[in-house]
Amino acid sequence: MELISQHGCHGGVQRFYRHDSAAVGLPMRFSVFLPPQAQGGAKVPVLFYLAGLTCTEETFMIKAGAQRFAAEHGLMLVAPDTSPRGAGVPGEADAWDFGVGAGFYVDATEAPWSRHWRMESYVAEELFDLVTTALPGEASRVGIFGHSMGGHGALVLAQRHPERFRSVSAFAPIAAPTRCPWGEKAFTGYLGGDRGAWAQYDATELMVRQQGAPFPAGILVDQGLDDQFLQSQLHPDAFEAACQAVGQPLTLRRHSGYDHGYYFISTFIADHIRHHAGQL
Amino acid sequence: MELISQHGCHGGVQRFYRHDSAAVGLPMRFSVFLPPQAQGGAKVPVLFYLAGLTCTEETFMIKAGAQRFAAEHGLMLVAPDTSPRGAGVPGEADAWDFGVGAGFYVDATEAPWSRHWRMESYVAEELFDLVTTALPGEASRVGIFGHSMGGHGALVLAQRHPERFRSVSAFAPIAAPTRCPWGEKAFTGYLGGDRGAWAQYDATELMVRQQGAPFPAGILVDQGLDDQFLQSQLHPDAFEAACQAVGQPLTLRRHSGYDHGYYFISTFIADHIRHHAGQL
Repeated sequence: MELISQHGCHGGVQRFYRHDSAAVGLPMRFSVFLPPQAQGGAKVPVLFYLAGLTCTEETFMIKAGAQRFAAEHGLMLVAPDTSPRGAGVPGEADAWDFGVGAGFYVDATEAPWSRHWRMESYVAEELFDLVTTALPGEASRVGIFGHSMGGHGALVLAQRHPERFRSVSAFAPIAAPTRCPWGEKAFTGYLGGDRGAWAQYDATELMVRQQGAPFPAGILVDQGLDDQFLQSQLHPDAFEAACQAVGQPLTLRRHSGYDHGYYFISTFIADHIRHHAGQL
Repeated sequence: MELISQHGCHGGVQRFYRHDSAAVGLPMRFSVFLPPQAQGGAKVPVLFYLAGLTCTEETFMIKAGAQRFAAEHGLMLVAPDTSPRGAGVPGEADAWDFGVGAGFYVDATEAPWSRHWRMESYVAEELFDLVTTALPGEASRVGIFGHSMGGHGALVLAQRHPERFRSVSAFAPIAAPTRCPWGEKAFTGYLGGDRGAWAQYDATELMVRQQGAPFPAGILVDQGLDDQFLQSQLHPDAFEAACQAVGQPLTLRRHSGYDHGYYFISTFIADHIRHHAGQL
């Protein structure tokens, strides 16, 4: 684990790391904000943030303004990159919504992606273990959230690994990826043409299959109503209906005048940090 | 004045504009945050932010997290670009500390820069007039701040135009540009080899020439002690001594562990917004 840079920030420290990932089989980068409460090696709760298409491990730390509130509540923030990089798969960078920068937080089963595109294992196991052992994250107090593709990732990984992630929220998530063009393209490429294999990575499909509420303290989702992708790609209504069907408490807030970008995220970031801090 | 984009943000709106600048003789871009208090056309106080070397009109709005506090205090934020672009001056983009992205907020007197590099007139007159007429800025309640090269710009423009700028602060300003390599290079290029002409654009030299305190309510400057440019380029001590000599109240805060970047700025941005709101 190589420290690339660190910066004083809100009484804590903002760090960028590179490490050789066993899950991905390539070097990966991630960012960490250590709140002042972690000084001296004290264990602190951890909040994973999964970013959207085309983003990197830097995007959230630069744009969201989350560190102020993580410092207030004593949360460590962790943001991985959004895909393997440097794999050399032919065509991996030809599209902005598939391949590099578009890992969708799944473990690919289709060649040639299955060798490196193992973002679920990377995030939920390898990086989770790293930040709770080599860094002062408390493994029993970890939450997850994200934006767009990363909102999908958060809602899916939280449901698939409830023993690891105790709280979950999302900004403008791709809430039903098996029903939208982004998800259909990604799942076809990473998981193959059998749609039966897709449901395991669809937040809405996972929710309707739950036996009772997996997060009884509630899930928070914020959605801008001027979001250019709302109608075609996101489908929060489907996730909302699934939560209602199984009794999962969900606060889905619809905001007039807000779009899909980080000005939207920065507006509501404090509420999300508070949501997680209250459950961790 | 062409609206390039707008985004809901903290109950107000983040906008990016392009316009044909008479002062610069080229199209210029700038960004504006309109707080919720400006809805319905009500006039609000204005805070100009001048960015540092290599930055654009986007940098501050993306990275500083200022909108949250501007919305709280009802301030409009305005951030210009850092130089003309598209002038086609030979060599204009050869260096990151001179030419494109490095206007230093002066009106150049030396050819070939004197034709377009007129950032003082652009900011203090043309853009000032634009945001207080075509936008709901209140001309009698305008403050200015900035970072590094833009901190220099803020401390200089405030002293050169005290009838326009009523409050001033800076993050890690180039506080005595006639004594540092960045300033010597820029002033030689834009103002010529006669150092006597440089003092008018040096915040420290301007301050020692003041008859009494130009900003009796006080100036705020934040400086990180891990700033990689502190020793070679910034010289806050010189500005501090000049303020003491003329009785100008100055709060110069030196912060251990903070560097020259936006993680530093975002940490202390709330204090700066409050400083200006209190004086406007």
